[in-house]
Amino acid sequence: MTAVVNEIILASRSPRRAEILSRMGFRFSVHVRPVDENIRIPEPEPHVLALSVRKAEAVRSGFPHALIVGADTIVFHNGRILGKPAGPDEAAAMLRDLSGATHQVYTGFAILHPDGRAVKDCVVTDVTFRALADWEIRRYADSGEPLDKAGAYGIQGGAGVFVDRIDGCYYNVVGFPVSRFHERLCGLVGEEGGRKLKVES
Amino acid sequence: MTAVVNEIILASRSPRRAEILSRMGFRFSVHVRPVDENIRIPEPEPHVLALSVRKAEAVRSGFPHALIVGADTIVFHNGRILGKPAGPDEAAAMLRDLSGATHQVYTGFAILHPDGRAVKDCVVTDVTFRALADWEIRRYADSGEPLDKAGAYGIQGGAGVFVDRIDGCYYNVVGFPVSRFHERLCGLVGEEGGRKLKVES
Repeated sequence: MTAVVNEIILASRSPRRAEILSRMGFRFSVHVRPVDENIRIPEPEPHVLALSVRKAEAVRSGFPHALIVGADTIVFHNGRILGKPAGPDEAAAMLRDLSGATHQVYTGFAILHPDGRAVKDCVVTDVTFRALADWEIRRYADSGEPLDKAGAYGIQGGAGVFVDRIDGCYYNVVGFPVSRFHERLCGLVGEEGGRKLKVES
Repeated sequence: MTAVVNEIILASRSPRRAEILSRMGFRFSVHVRPVDENIRIPEPEPHVLALSVRKAEAVRSGFPHALIVGADTIVFHNGRILGKPAGPDEAAAMLRDLSGATHQVYTGFAILHPDGRAVKDCVVTDVTFRALADWEIRRYADSGEPLDKAGAYGIQGGAGVFVDRIDGCYYNVVGFPVSRFHERLCGLVGEEGGRKLKVES
Protein backbone atom coordinates (compact mmCIF):
# COMPACT_ATOMS: atom_id res chain seq x y z
CA MET A 1 0.00 0.00 0.00
CA THR A 2 1.37 3.39 -0.99
CA ALA A 3 1.05 6.18 1.53
CA VAL A 4 -0.81 9.28 0.36
CA VAL A 5 1.56 12.20 0.36
CA ASN A 6 0.35 15.75 0.36
CA GLU A 7 3.36 17.70 1.50
CA ILE A 8 6.67 18.63 -0.13
CA ILE A 9 9.65 19.66 1.98
CA LEU A 10 12.33 21.53 0.05
CA ALA A 11 15.67 20.84 1.74
CA SER A 12 17.47 23.79 0.21
CA ARG A 13 18.07 27.33 1.35
CA SER A 14 18.31 28.64 -2.24
CA PRO A 15 15.68 31.35 -2.74
CA ARG A 16 15.85 30.60 -6.49
CA ARG A 17 14.77 26.99 -6.04
CA ALA A 18 11.88 28.08 -3.84
CA GLU A 19 10.87 30.68 -6.40
CA ILE A 20 10.91 28.16 -9.26
CA LEU A 21 8.85 25.61 -7.31
CA SER A 22 6.27 28.18 -6.33
CA ARG A 23 6.08 29.67 -9.83
CA MET A 24 5.29 26.17 -11.03
CA GLY A 25 2.39 26.00 -8.63
CA PHE A 26 3.76 23.56 -6.05
CA ARG A 27 2.88 23.85 -2.38
CA PHE A 28 5.92 23.20 -0.20
CA SER A 29 7.80 24.35 2.83
CA VAL A 30 11.52 24.84 3.27
CA HIS A 31 13.51 23.04 5.96
CA VAL A 32 17.25 22.79 5.96
CA ARG A 33 19.75 21.04 8.19
CA PRO A 34 23.47 21.63 7.83
CA VAL A 35 25.39 19.02 5.86
CA ASP A 36 29.06 18.68 5.05
CA GLU A 37 29.28 19.94 1.45
CA ASN A 38 32.94 19.03 1.12
CA ILE A 39 32.73 15.78 -0.75
CA ARG A 40 35.74 14.77 -2.76
CA ILE A 41 34.01 13.60 -5.92
CA PRO A 42 35.63 15.25 -8.94
CA GLU A 43 33.08 14.03 -11.54
CA PRO A 44 30.18 16.47 -11.76
CA GLU A 45 27.22 14.08 -11.98
CA PRO A 46 28.06 11.83 -9.00
CA HIS A 47 29.02 14.99 -7.10
CA VAL A 48 25.63 16.70 -7.42
CA LEU A 49 23.69 13.46 -6.94
CA ALA A 50 25.53 12.62 -3.73
CA LEU A 51 25.00 16.11 -2.29
CA SER A 52 21.32 16.15 -3.27
CA VAL A 53 20.72 12.90 -1.41
CA ARG A 54 22.75 14.10 1.57
CA LYS A 55 20.73 17.34 1.85
CA ALA A 56 17.41 15.49 1.57
CA GLU A 57 18.36 12.78 4.06
CA ALA A 58 19.43 15.36 6.61
CA VAL A 59 15.83 16.53 7.11
CA ARG A 60 14.03 13.23 6.52
CA SER A 61 13.62 12.22 10.14
CA GLY A 62 11.73 15.40 10.96
CA PHE A 63 9.08 14.82 8.28
CA PRO A 64 8.25 11.12 8.07
CA HIS A 65 5.09 11.68 5.97
CA ALA A 66 6.41 14.14 3.40
CA LEU A 67 8.23 14.03 0.09
CA ILE A 68 11.69 15.44 0.71
CA VAL A 69 13.47 17.23 -2.14
CA GLY A 70 17.20 17.94 -2.11
CA ALA A 71 19.20 19.59 -4.90
CA ASP A 72 22.70 20.71 -5.73
CA THR A 73 24.09 22.81 -8.61
CA ILE A 74 27.65 23.18 -9.87
CA VAL A 75 29.39 24.77 -12.84
CA PHE A 76 31.85 22.60 -14.74
CA HIS A 77 34.51 24.06 -17.01
CA ASN A 78 37.77 22.70 -18.39
CA GLY A 79 37.53 19.62 -16.19
CA ARG A 80 37.05 21.58 -12.98
CA ILE A 81 34.06 22.01 -10.69
CA LEU A 82 33.36 25.64 -9.83
CA GLY A 83 31.40 26.12 -6.62
CA LYS A 84 30.60 29.37 -4.82
CA PRO A 85 33.42 31.96 -4.85
CA ALA A 86 34.99 32.91 -1.54
CA GLY A 87 35.01 36.65 -2.38
CA PRO A 88 34.99 39.24 -5.19
CA ASP A 89 38.50 38.34 -6.40
CA GLU A 90 37.73 34.67 -6.78
CA ALA A 91 34.43 35.63 -8.44
CA ALA A 92 36.30 37.78 -10.97
CA ALA A 93 38.75 34.95 -11.68
CA MET A 94 35.88 32.51 -12.29
CA LEU A 95 34.14 34.96 -14.62
CA ARG A 96 37.35 35.56 -16.59
CA ASP A 97 37.62 31.80 -16.93
CA LEU A 98 34.05 31.50 -18.25
CA SER A 99 34.31 34.52 -20.61
CA GLY A 100 34.03 33.72 -24.33
CA ALA A 101 33.55 29.99 -23.74
CA THR A 102 30.96 27.26 -23.22
CA HIS A 103 30.64 25.58 -19.82
CA GLN A 104 28.24 23.07 -18.31
CA VAL A 105 25.81 23.52 -15.45
CA TYR A 106 24.85 20.36 -13.55
CA THR A 107 21.92 20.24 -11.20
CA GLY A 108 21.15 17.05 -9.33
CA PHE A 109 18.02 16.46 -7.33
CA ALA A 110 16.73 13.70 -5.08
CA ILE A 111 13.13 12.99 -4.07
CA LEU A 112 12.63 10.77 -1.02
CA HIS A 113 9.20 9.17 -0.59
CA PRO A 114 7.95 8.26 2.91
CA ASP A 115 7.47 4.64 1.81
CA GLY A 116 11.23 4.31 1.28
CA ARG A 117 11.35 4.77 -2.47
CA ALA A 118 13.61 7.48 -3.88
CA VAL A 119 14.47 8.92 -7.25
CA LYS A 120 17.48 10.95 -8.15
CA ASP A 121 18.38 12.53 -11.43
CA CYS A 122 20.77 15.06 -12.94
CA VAL A 123 20.33 17.51 -15.81
CA VAL A 124 23.15 19.16 -17.76
CA THR A 125 22.86 22.43 -19.68
CA ASP A 126 25.47 24.08 -21.90
CA VAL A 127 25.90 27.80 -21.30
CA THR A 128 27.90 30.04 -23.65
CA PHE A 129 29.24 33.38 -22.42
CA ARG A 130 30.21 36.11 -24.87
CA ALA A 131 33.67 37.64 -24.45
CA LEU A 132 33.38 39.90 -21.40
CA ALA A 133 35.08 43.27 -20.98
CA ASP A 134 37.23 43.67 -17.91
CA TRP A 135 35.07 46.44 -16.43
CA GLU A 136 31.98 44.26 -16.72
CA ILE A 137 33.67 41.45 -14.84
CA ARG A 138 34.91 43.81 -12.16
CA ARG A 139 31.58 45.53 -11.71
CA TYR A 140 29.64 42.29 -11.49
CA ALA A 141 32.19 40.62 -9.19
CA ASP A 142 32.00 43.61 -6.85
CA SER A 143 28.19 43.69 -6.84
CA GLY A 144 27.89 40.92 -4.26
CA GLU A 145 25.54 38.94 -6.48
CA PRO A 146 28.08 36.18 -7.35
CA LEU A 147 28.85 35.23 -3.76
CA ASP A 148 26.09 32.67 -3.13
CA LYS A 149 26.16 31.24 -6.66
CA ALA A 150 28.01 28.32 -8.22
CA GLY A 151 30.39 29.59 -10.91
CA ALA A 152 29.99 33.16 -9.55
CA TYR A 153 26.99 34.14 -11.65
CA GLY A 154 23.20 34.22 -11.69
CA ILE A 155 21.69 33.91 -15.17
CA GLN A 156 18.42 35.36 -13.88
CA GLY A 157 20.18 38.47 -12.55
CA GLY A 158 22.88 40.84 -13.74
CA ALA A 159 24.79 38.12 -15.55
CA GLY A 160 21.94 37.47 -17.99
CA VAL A 161 23.65 39.98 -20.24
CA PHE A 162 26.78 37.78 -20.32
CA VAL A 163 24.96 34.79 -21.77
CA ASP A 164 24.91 34.41 -25.53
CA ARG A 165 23.02 31.16 -25.59
CA ILE A 166 22.02 28.16 -23.57
CA ASP A 167 21.41 24.67 -24.88
CA GLY A 168 19.21 22.61 -22.61
CA CYS A 169 16.99 23.39 -19.64
CA TYR A 170 17.06 27.04 -18.52
CA TYR A 171 15.72 26.42 -15.03
CA ASN A 172 18.51 23.93 -14.54
CA VAL A 173 20.93 26.86 -14.84
CA VAL A 174 18.94 28.87 -12.32
CA GLY A 175 19.26 25.89 -9.98
CA PHE A 176 16.32 23.55 -10.44
CA PRO A 177 15.39 21.57 -13.59
CA VAL A 178 11.67 21.85 -13.03
CA SER A 179 10.48 20.03 -16.15
CA ARG A 180 12.54 16.93 -15.34
CA PHE A 181 11.53 17.22 -11.68
CA HIS A 182 7.87 17.28 -12.67
CA GLU A 183 8.37 14.16 -14.82
CA ARG A 184 10.18 12.26 -12.06
CA LEU A 185 7.69 13.35 -9.43
CA CYS A 186 4.78 12.06 -11.54
CA GLY A 187 6.70 8.81 -11.98
CA LEU A 188 6.90 8.52 -8.20
CA VAL A 189 3.41 9.61 -7.10
CA GLY A 190 1.41 9.43 -10.36
CA GLU A 191 -0.07 12.30 -12.38
CA GLU A 192 -3.01 12.65 -10.05
CA GLY A 193 -0.68 12.63 -7.06
CA GLY A 194 1.46 15.35 -8.64
CA ARG A 195 -1.61 17.50 -9.21
CA LYS A 196 -2.56 17.24 -5.54
CA LEU A 197 0.79 18.73 -4.59
CA LYS A 198 -0.07 21.91 -6.45
CA VAL A 199 -2.01 24.95 -5.39
CA GLU A 200 -5.58 24.87 -6.68
CA SER A 201 -5.98 27.32 -9.53
CA MET B 1 29.69 64.94 -34.80
CA THR B 2 27.80 62.32 -32.85
CA ALA B 3 25.25 63.55 -30.33
CA VAL B 4 25.77 62.38 -26.77
CA VAL B 5 22.81 60.25 -25.76
CA ASN B 6 21.97 59.56 -22.17
CA GLU B 7 18.40 58.40 -22.32
CA ILE B 8 16.70 55.22 -23.51
CA ILE B 9 13.01 55.19 -24.37
CA LEU B 10 11.48 51.73 -24.44
CA ALA B 11 8.59 51.80 -26.92
CA SER B 12 6.91 48.66 -25.59
CA ARG B 13 4.19 48.06 -23.04
CA SER B 14 5.52 44.58 -22.21
CA PRO B 15 6.32 44.43 -18.48
CA ARG B 16 8.73 41.56 -19.27
CA ARG B 17 10.86 43.72 -21.57
CA ALA B 18 11.01 46.45 -18.95
CA GLU B 19 11.98 43.92 -16.30
CA ILE B 20 14.78 42.47 -18.45
CA LEU B 21 16.20 45.91 -19.27
CA SER B 22 16.17 46.99 -15.66
CA ARG B 23 17.65 43.71 -14.41
CA MET B 24 20.50 44.32 -16.83
CA GLY B 25 21.11 47.69 -15.21
CA PHE B 26 19.81 50.01 -17.94
CA ARG B 27 18.13 53.30 -17.11
CA PHE B 28 15.13 53.90 -19.35
CA SER B 29 11.57 55.09 -19.46
CA VAL B 30 8.60 53.55 -21.21
CA HIS B 31 6.55 55.45 -23.78
CA VAL B 32 4.15 53.79 -26.16
CA ARG B 33 2.00 55.09 -29.00
CA PRO B 34 -0.54 52.86 -30.69
CA VAL B 35 0.54 51.30 -33.97
CA ASP B 36 -1.30 49.06 -36.39
CA GLU B 37 0.07 45.59 -35.57
CA ASN B 38 -1.77 43.94 -38.46
CA ILE B 39 0.95 43.66 -41.00
CA ARG B 40 0.58 41.00 -43.64
CA ILE B 41 4.12 39.64 -43.64
CA PRO B 42 4.05 35.84 -43.30
CA GLU B 43 7.84 35.36 -42.87
CA PRO B 44 8.75 35.67 -39.21
CA GLU B 45 11.98 37.70 -39.42
CA PRO B 46 10.72 40.52 -41.69
CA HIS B 47 7.50 40.51 -39.63
CA VAL B 48 9.15 41.21 -36.26
CA LEU B 49 11.67 43.65 -37.74
CA ALA B 50 8.97 45.70 -39.45
CA LEU B 51 6.87 45.88 -36.28
CA SER B 52 9.87 46.77 -34.12
CA VAL B 53 10.70 49.70 -36.37
CA ARG B 54 7.06 50.76 -36.52
CA LYS B 55 6.74 50.79 -32.70
CA ALA B 56 9.99 52.75 -32.28
CA GLU B 57 9.16 55.29 -34.99
CA ALA B 58 5.76 55.95 -33.45
CA VAL B 59 7.35 57.60 -30.40
CA ARG B 60 10.42 59.13 -32.04
CA SER B 61 9.05 62.63 -32.54
CA GLY B 62 8.36 63.06 -28.82
CA PHE B 63 11.96 62.28 -27.82
CA PRO B 64 14.37 63.81 -30.34
CA HIS B 65 17.44 63.38 -28.11
CA ALA B 66 16.90 59.79 -26.92
CA LEU B 67 17.65 56.29 -28.15
CA ILE B 68 14.33 54.71 -29.02
CA VAL B 69 13.97 50.95 -28.65
CA GLY B 70 11.14 48.97 -30.24
CA ALA B 71 10.65 45.20 -30.14
CA ASP B 72 8.27 42.50 -31.28
CA THR B 73 8.04 38.78 -30.45
CA ILE B 74 6.24 35.98 -32.25
CA VAL B 75 6.08 32.20 -32.02
CA PHE B 76 6.54 30.29 -35.28
CA HIS B 77 5.40 26.71 -35.70
CA ASN B 78 4.66 24.55 -38.74
CA GLY B 79 4.99 27.54 -41.04
CA ARG B 80 2.52 29.69 -39.09
CA ILE B 81 2.99 32.78 -36.93
CA LEU B 82 1.27 32.52 -33.55
CA GLY B 83 0.49 35.87 -31.97
CA LYS B 84 -1.52 36.53 -28.81
CA PRO B 85 -4.57 34.29 -28.35
CA ALA B 86 -8.02 35.92 -28.42
CA GLY B 87 -9.27 33.92 -25.42
CA PRO B 88 -8.82 30.73 -23.37
CA ASP B 89 -10.05 28.42 -26.17
CA GLU B 90 -7.61 29.78 -28.72
CA ALA B 91 -4.89 29.62 -26.05
CA ALA B 92 -5.66 25.93 -25.44
CA ALA B 93 -5.58 25.23 -29.19
CA MET B 94 -2.17 26.91 -29.51
CA LEU B 95 -0.79 24.94 -26.55
CA ARG B 96 -2.07 21.64 -27.98
CA ASP B 97 -0.31 22.59 -31.21
CA LEU B 98 2.98 23.27 -29.38
CA SER B 99 2.79 20.17 -27.14
CA GLY B 100 5.50 17.55 -27.71
CA ALA B 101 7.21 19.57 -30.45
CA THR B 102 9.90 22.16 -31.15
CA HIS B 103 8.93 25.67 -32.25
CA GLN B 104 10.82 28.90 -32.87
CA VAL B 105 10.57 32.17 -31.01
CA TYR B 106 11.56 35.28 -32.98
CA THR B 107 12.19 38.60 -31.33
CA GLY B 108 13.11 41.59 -33.42
CA PHE B 109 14.31 44.88 -32.04
CA ALA B 110 15.13 48.28 -33.47
CA ILE B 111 17.28 51.03 -31.93
CA LEU B 112 16.87 54.52 -33.39
CA HIS B 113 19.66 57.01 -32.69
CA PRO B 114 18.88 60.75 -32.62
CA ASP B 115 21.51 61.36 -35.32
CA GLY B 116 19.45 59.33 -37.80
CA ARG B 117 21.34 56.06 -37.55
CA ALA B 118 19.41 52.90 -36.69
CA VAL B 119 20.12 49.24 -36.09
CA LYS B 120 17.69 46.40 -36.22
CA ASP B 121 18.27 42.77 -35.52
CA CYS B 122 16.39 39.55 -34.90
CA VAL B 123 17.21 36.56 -32.71
CA VAL B 124 15.70 33.08 -33.08
CA THR B 125 15.49 30.49 -30.28
CA ASP B 126 14.28 26.90 -30.51
CA VAL B 127 11.93 25.87 -27.71
CA THR B 128 10.92 22.24 -27.12
CA PHE B 129 7.76 21.43 -25.16
CA ARG B 130 7.28 18.04 -23.55
CA ALA B 131 4.01 16.24 -24.31
CA LEU B 132 1.37 18.04 -22.24
CA ALA B 133 -1.57 16.41 -20.49
CA ASP B 134 -4.97 17.80 -21.36
CA TRP B 135 -5.66 18.98 -17.81
CA GLU B 136 -2.42 20.96 -17.79
CA ILE B 137 -3.35 22.71 -21.02
CA ARG B 138 -6.84 23.49 -19.78
CA ARG B 139 -5.67 24.76 -16.41
CA TYR B 140 -2.99 27.00 -17.91
CA ALA B 141 -5.26 28.27 -20.71
CA ASP B 142 -7.88 29.23 -18.12
CA SER B 143 -5.39 30.96 -15.83
CA GLY B 144 -5.40 34.18 -17.84
CA GLU B 145 -1.62 34.15 -18.12
CA PRO B 146 -1.53 33.25 -21.86
CA LEU B 147 -3.69 36.14 -23.01
CA ASP B 148 -1.04 38.83 -23.48
CA LYS B 149 1.65 36.45 -24.75
CA ALA B 150 2.67 35.35 -28.24
CA GLY B 151 2.04 31.64 -28.64
CA ALA B 152 -0.12 31.63 -25.48
CA TYR B 153 2.64 30.98 -22.97
CA GLY B 154 5.17 32.67 -20.73
CA ILE B 155 8.35 30.65 -20.17
CA GLN B 156 9.11 32.70 -17.03
CA GLY B 157 5.71 31.87 -15.52
CA GLY B 158 3.51 28.81 -15.20
CA ALA B 159 4.54 27.42 -18.58
CA GLY B 160 8.17 26.97 -17.50
CA VAL B 161 7.18 23.46 -16.49
CA PHE B 162 6.16 22.72 -20.10
CA VAL B 163 9.61 23.45 -21.50
CA ASP B 164 11.98 20.55 -21.86
CA ARG B 165 14.79 22.53 -23.40
CA ILE B 166 15.68 25.68 -25.22
CA ASP B 167 18.45 26.14 -27.73
CA GLY B 168 19.55 29.72 -28.08
CA CYS B 169 18.94 32.92 -26.10
CA TYR B 170 16.56 32.49 -23.13
CA TYR B 171 15.71 36.17 -22.77
CA ASN B 172 14.72 36.15 -26.42
CA VAL B 173 11.93 33.75 -25.46
CA VAL B 174 10.85 36.00 -22.61
CA GLY B 175 10.66 38.82 -25.17
CA PHE B 176 13.97 40.64 -25.36
CA PRO B 177 17.35 39.22 -26.48
CA VAL B 178 19.37 41.29 -24.08
CA SER B 179 22.83 39.94 -24.96
CA ARG B 180 22.42 40.74 -28.66
CA PHE B 181 20.83 44.09 -27.74
CA HIS B 182 23.83 44.95 -25.59
CA GLU B 183 26.19 44.08 -28.44
CA ARG B 184 24.25 46.15 -30.99
CA LEU B 185 23.88 49.04 -28.59
CA CYS B 186 27.65 49.13 -28.00
CA GLY B 187 28.12 49.04 -31.79
CA LEU B 188 25.93 52.13 -32.05
CA VAL B 189 27.13 54.24 -29.10
CA GLY B 190 30.44 52.59 -28.16
CA GLU B 191 31.27 50.61 -25.02
CA GLU B 192 31.72 53.75 -22.97
CA GLY B 193 28.43 55.11 -24.27
CA GLY B 194 26.65 51.87 -23.35
CA ARG B 195 28.05 52.08 -19.84
CA LYS B 196 26.66 55.58 -19.40
CA LEU B 197 23.19 54.27 -20.12
CA LYS B 198 23.37 52.03 -17.06
CA VAL B 199 22.66 52.72 -13.42
CA GLU B 200 25.82 53.32 -11.44
CA SER B 201 26.59 50.30 -9.28
